Amino acid sequence: MNRPARAIALLLATLAFPALAADRAAMTADPLPLVDPLIGTDWYGYTFVGATVPFGMVKLGPDMASFDGVASKYGYRRDGNVLGFSHLHLSGAAGKYGNIRVMPASGALDIADVASPRTDEVVRPGYYAATLVRPAVRAELTAGARAGVHRYTFRTAQAAHITVRLDQMLNKRGGKEDQRFLGGNVTARSAHEIDGMGRYAGGWNMGDEYRVYFALIADRDAAGTRTWTGEALSAAPSASVDGDHPIGATLDFPGRAGQTVTARVGISFVSVDKARQNALAAAGFDATRAAGEQAWRHALSPIRIAGGTASQQRQFYSALYHVMMMPSDHSGENPKWSSSEPYYDDYYTIWDTFRTNAPLLTLIAPERERDLVRSLVDIYRHEGWLPDGRSGNSTGRTQGGSNADVMIADAYVKGLRGIDYATALQGMEKNAAVEPDRPEQYGRGGISDYLAKGYVSTDFPRAGSRTVEYAYDDFAIAELANGLGHADIARAALKRSGNWAHLWDPALSREGVSGFLRPRKPDGTWADPYLVTRGTWPDFLYEGDIWTYSLYAPQDIPGLIAKAGGADAFRKRLDTLFDHLHFDITNEPGFLIPMLYHWLGRPDLSVERLIDYREKGFFDGRGGLPANDDSGAMSSWLVFQSLGLFPVAGQDLYLIGSPEFTASDIDLGGGHILHIRAPGLGATGENPFVQSAELDGRPLDRAWLRHEEIAHGGMLVLHMGPKPGAWGTAPPPAPTLAMASGHPG
Amino acid sequence: MNRPARAIALLLATLAFPALAADRAAMTADPLPLVDPLIGTDWYGYTFVGATVPFGMVKLGPDMASFDGVASKYGYRRDGNVLGFSHLHLSGAAGKYGNIRVMPASGALDIADVASPRTDEVVRPGYYAATLVRPAVRAELTAGARAGVHRYTFRTAQAAHITVRLDQMLNKRGGKEDQRFLGGNVTARSAHEIDGMGRYAGGWNMGDEYRVYFALIADRDAAGTRTWTGEALSAAPSASVDGDHPIGATLDFPGRAGQTVTARVGISFVSVDKARQNALAAAGFDATRAAGEQAWRHALSPIRIAGGTASQQRQFYSALYHVMMMPSDHSGENPKWSSSEPYYDDYYTIWDTFRTNAPLLTLIAPERERDLVRSLVDIYRHEGWLPDGRSGNSTGRTQGGSNADVMIADAYVKGLRGIDYATALQGMEKNAAVEPDRPEQYGRGGISDYLAKGYVSTDFPRAGSRTVEYAYDDFAIAELANGLGHADIARAALKRSGNWAHLWDPALSREGVSGFLRPRKPDGTWADPYLVTRGTWPDFLYEGDIWTYSLYAPQDIPGLIAKAGGADAFRKRLDTLFDHLHFDITNEPGFLIPMLYHWLGRPDLSVERLIDYREKGFFDGRGGLPANDDSGAMSSWLVFQSLGLFPVAGQDLYLIGSPEFTASDIDLGGGHILHIRAPGLGATGENPFVQSAELDGRPLDRAWLRHEEIAHGGMLVLHMGPKPGAWGTAPPPAPTLAMASGHPG
Repeated sequence: MNRPARAIALLLATLAFPALAADRAAMTADPLPLVDPLIGTDWYGYTFVGATVPFGMVKLGPDMASFDGVASKYGYRRDGNVLGFSHLHLSGAAGKYGNIRVMPASGALDIADVASPRTDEVVRPGYYAATLVRPAVRAELTAGARAGVHRYTFRTAQAAHITVRLDQMLNKRGGKEDQRFLGGNVTARSAHEIDGMGRYAGGWNMGDEYRVYFALIADRDAAGTRTWTGEALSAAPSASVDGDHPIGATLDFPGRAGQTVTARVGISFVSVDKARQNALAAAGFDATRAAGEQAWRHALSPIRIAGGTASQQRQFYSALYHVMMMPSDHSGENPKWSSSEPYYDDYYTIWDTFRTNAPLLTLIAPERERDLVRSLVDIYRHEGWLPDGRSGNSTGRTQGGSNADVMIADAYVKGLRGIDYATALQGMEKNAAVEPDRPEQYGRGGISDYLAKGYVSTDFPRAGSRTVEYAYDDFAIAELANGLGHADIARAALKRSGNWAHLWDPALSREGVSGFLRPRKPDGTWADPYLVTRGTWPDFLYEGDIWTYSLYAPQDIPGLIAKAGGADAFRKRLDTLFDHLHFDITNEPGFLIPMLYHWLGRPDLSVERLIDYREKGFFDGRGGLPANDDSGAMSSWLVFQSLGLFPVAGQDLYLIGSPEFTASDIDLGGGHILHIRAPGLGATGENPFVQSAELDGRPLDRAWLRHEEIAHGGMLVLHMGPKPGAWGTAPPPAPTLAMASGHPG
Repeated sequence: MNRPARAIALLLATLAFPALAADRAAMTADPLPLVDPLIGTDWYGYTFVGATVPFGMVKLGPDMASFDGVASKYGYRRDGNVLGFSHLHLSGAAGKYGNIRVMPASGALDIADVASPRTDEVVRPGYYAATLVRPAVRAELTAGARAGVHRYTFRTAQAAHITVRLDQMLNKRGGKEDQRFLGGNVTARSAHEIDGMGRYAGGWNMGDEYRVYFALIADRDAAGTRTWTGEALSAAPSASVDGDHPIGATLDFPGRAGQTVTARVGISFVSVDKARQNALAAAGFDATRAAGEQAWRHALSPIRIAGGTASQQRQFYSALYHVMMMPSDHSGENPKWSSSEPYYDDYYTIWDTFRTNAPLLTLIAPERERDLVRSLVDIYRHEGWLPDGRSGNSTGRTQGGSNADVMIADAYVKGLRGIDYATALQGMEKNAAVEPDRPEQYGRGGISDYLAKGYVSTDFPRAGSRTVEYAYDDFAIAELANGLGHADIARAALKRSGNWAHLWDPALSREGVSGFLRPRKPDGTWADPYLVTRGTWPDFLYEGDIWTYSLYAPQDIPGLIAKAGGADAFRKRLDTLFDHLHFDITNEPGFLIPMLYHWLGRPDLSVERLIDYREKGFFDGRGGLPANDDSGAMSSWLVFQSLGLFPVAGQDLYLIGSPEFTASDIDLGGGHILHIRAPGLGATGENPFVQSAELDGRPLDRAWLRHEEIAHGGMLVLHMGPKPGAWGTAPPPAPTLAMASGHPG
């Protein structure tokens, strides 16, 4: 059916659906009150707490330590002391940032000891407030894209100070994956202005030096300013250190109970002047806060929902909020090269985010996703490698394969325009051809081995996860090359995409299941099976076990089923995997596994599993994420599974699961709305199985959709009921390169 | 201080606590509405759904299968068909029972196909109701201790049937751990009465044959009765089969829309006559239901609480409800010997329950716990072995050590009277001395190896977990022997209790932690380290990993800390264990691990971990238990941790954690009440750390209590606040045998 015909069908279907107007009236008018930023702060979720705007470069929030001094790895803690408020953070991850720490103090200033417990905390999108008990200060934070705004109300009549310190940040513990302070400088420009720069390096991504410039502008003159480079305060207006020594400055105000000082702190990765411009671009506190709230409201509004429980609604919008934390938009703040292309930092990492974050943004924020891909291509253009991880302007590390390949292919097969796909393909081809000089940082370590033997041998770490990821990355290359008319590249890449099978040992058995990935020596013989549950950097499998990685072949699931012994054996294998608790929702490599029953024609069994994990892994509380949110990866898994759709990243395929909401409207941009309706779904999740379905008014007898079918909006009606097994028994077809052709260059 | 002096101190402390009366007024008046029996039915919790009384022999509930015929392992399912209502179940476990299945039907009776979906389910303590869609019957169930009462309201005018079937039960799949039907008979005694007997064997405990007798008595005459032994119905009043063939009977009523038939079904393990007596002892439906509710109200009332969230209160009483499901009181229903002692079945298994169920019952139901121990001793007296598991009148299986030893010692050191401890000690000594002929069923397999070498060698399965469990079981023997004046036995057992250290390899390192249990060959040399995460029957460690079992030495935690490299290394080890998610809340061997920080003088760190797992592992929903409830083991962990006390099973020690409730009163019997008050605790868990404490009005500067200190009631006031680390820094002392002396024989 061509597009006009589809549009008419949709219109008719929309008009024919009687509850549409009522649904709209029942939908969340304002998502903001449903966001709880604290979800994911316990239980290793590591979600950012503080003030930021969507994809904001500045993430201003508290850095805390336990009362006996153990610093939080990512900033926040349930208990303990606030050490200060710093301007750069990750979300869902640890190992970077916490720079330019501002902290108010009262009375005689002891620069070595300004930490304070806090009470009466308020955490809202774009706003953070707490009462700091020791200095008796009400601290409020809000943020624009490039500046934080601090408002401190001093409740005592003691002398008031606003300190800024450069040499302290997160993860400063001296380990291989920790951050280092290299030096910096600070200058009191006037009685209300301090600026400076800190130099940092290291962190989890083992990055090179990055410089953070700042300009703090208070809304009133201090009585004096001081600086320090050691333990003692000095009247000198400037200070600098080379190497890891204390350095900071303070604005000192006369004591007056109830006085308020507002300070704008501009941040830049380029220069102090840019930092000052960024500070001056910020409005006052209340206006900045209002603008931030409006930005969040706008960012969250493409999906509107009705139905589900109050807890599910809060989980949903909090998840969506957390998806929009990372990467950080650094456009115009790139110290390494000048370009008119968008520049994003904090891909942390694509290994985590390519599966669900990217497909979600493609649906609800396609221009954002386009810019993210453009930024990747521009990084390749100037540095020679597509990143997997990147933070602090340094590419690194690469956890698995070169999954930027899949992110680019995902954008391509879904028709995202405005991307230089030709250059992108060059970067992808380089991944697949050139042994990187720093294999933990970029590229595909062991690629020469993989090309020569068809698998990564035990000569290289992570040989198992690398092999199966490289194979899928190669499929991504084949898709894009085919679409761009490079048949030879496509053919070669498609051949390599079958390499996952070269590590499959059909005789390796465990718990009644046969056929698993197994390490292989350079001479082609099998090495000892590797059976530990979660691998790490030097192991055969990275952050996953043989149950998980043996099922990773999204390019050829029918082939995988055949290798595993056919449909019956595959169902038994999946049942065993779940029943014996081998499915690991705490990490991304298994994200697709609950949906694999779809390929057996049993989407109802997928539904049983996904509901189990949606209920058990996620809840409406501080511990309500399964593990590190990983830039919103966990959150975006939940968003999709709550909507009843799940993407196969890198392909134009969505699997239909089981929605939590009786109605959702997804604004795809350009006036296109995808309406999902689930009549019959109970108020607390009863009737989770699709009994029959219609798309745009016509029967839909399969549990999957092509992107093209919904890309211009649509009306998907899922008739829900108690009975599984009756619908959607046609498995998704194996992907072919034909799908990827005819798309925009 | 002597008892009168303590009583006066308590009285004064009680009077001095200003909020006591207000707390009492705020406490839950009726716990019943707070019980949600469905908690734990998803996510492998396997909690029983149906009607029963506390520790009731009859547990009458639905047995279900998925719509495509996959039967539930334990009875209930979230979705699918009701196959019928059977009278015996476990709770928190699978692998046994589901016998004597009653099912109503309407219209032409097809005995091979009576399954039906259900709607409008109501699940309350002592009551279950659902509408069976296919026969259009409202089914209601309630139960007394030895009989189920069914009430069926037929909504159609079609012919009505009440069928009973003997050859179907749970776990009938032909596997090694499944149940078998051996034969049985059925007789229609009159137009309103059917009785008979089924013979079963097998199941998870690999039990011998057990016979279930029943007598069904309807409250009205049927128009006719029929029986069957194959696929066809017969007018014959009796039927019997030898071997696994269909067998059942039906009462056939004329159709009349709205008619109600109530049927009492007595169950016996002894005879049909006894089953009939048990049926006749049941009152009518409403009276039985009311009595059951009253029994639950009484059983749950020893603990009253105030404060916490509504969800926490529901979790708490639902957990308490689930603790009181198992074992089942079969007194007077023992087909194997005649005795005036109590007889309990469904220890399933003590390996699961000795850690928290037994200590909980000792506090709030000491006469019940006394009877459970007496029952164990009587089983030893007549069968020659103390059981670890027992179900269907057959001892089996033994998962770890002979943990009845610990359960008995726990009762002894807490002064439970009325137990024949001398005979108990004989049974414990036999465990420690005699190689069992059926080592999976009872005793300590490999004990000869353990006695000769000081460890169980790789000649035997489960050598690691057996060694460390045997060592603690030996400590339990030492306690009891010492108390009974058998110094030689005590000395030898105490020496053996150090055997856990013989498998400790100080050089085995993992993730920066050194010193783990390691398999040892018969010649004393080390075998390859065993690193899989969760062991099974043939492995070195049973249902746990080296992180868990390496920390299992409750008899000598200071010694364990020293072996692990001292306090700093031990803290790092615990932190690593938790931070790397090696702590496994889904199984019992690690139950004490979150509290081990107490021995480092850091109860606040225990609190952080226990709150993490209390929040993440448990919630107020169907999936709200971490895994199999295991006869209420998970639930009793939660009960203790919610109260802010945690027992070290087998010792007279409680560790103080962090209560969820601002006030709780624990009725210890005999007029003794333990009041726990937590002033300062926030409404949603703020201020979880004890800042200071008083017991009976006097300062308590340690985070642990002896049983004797609270056994006669008390007033424990925990002043809660945000600051950790300030209180309770004196670690618990190592246990000594002196503690166990001077107790009742």
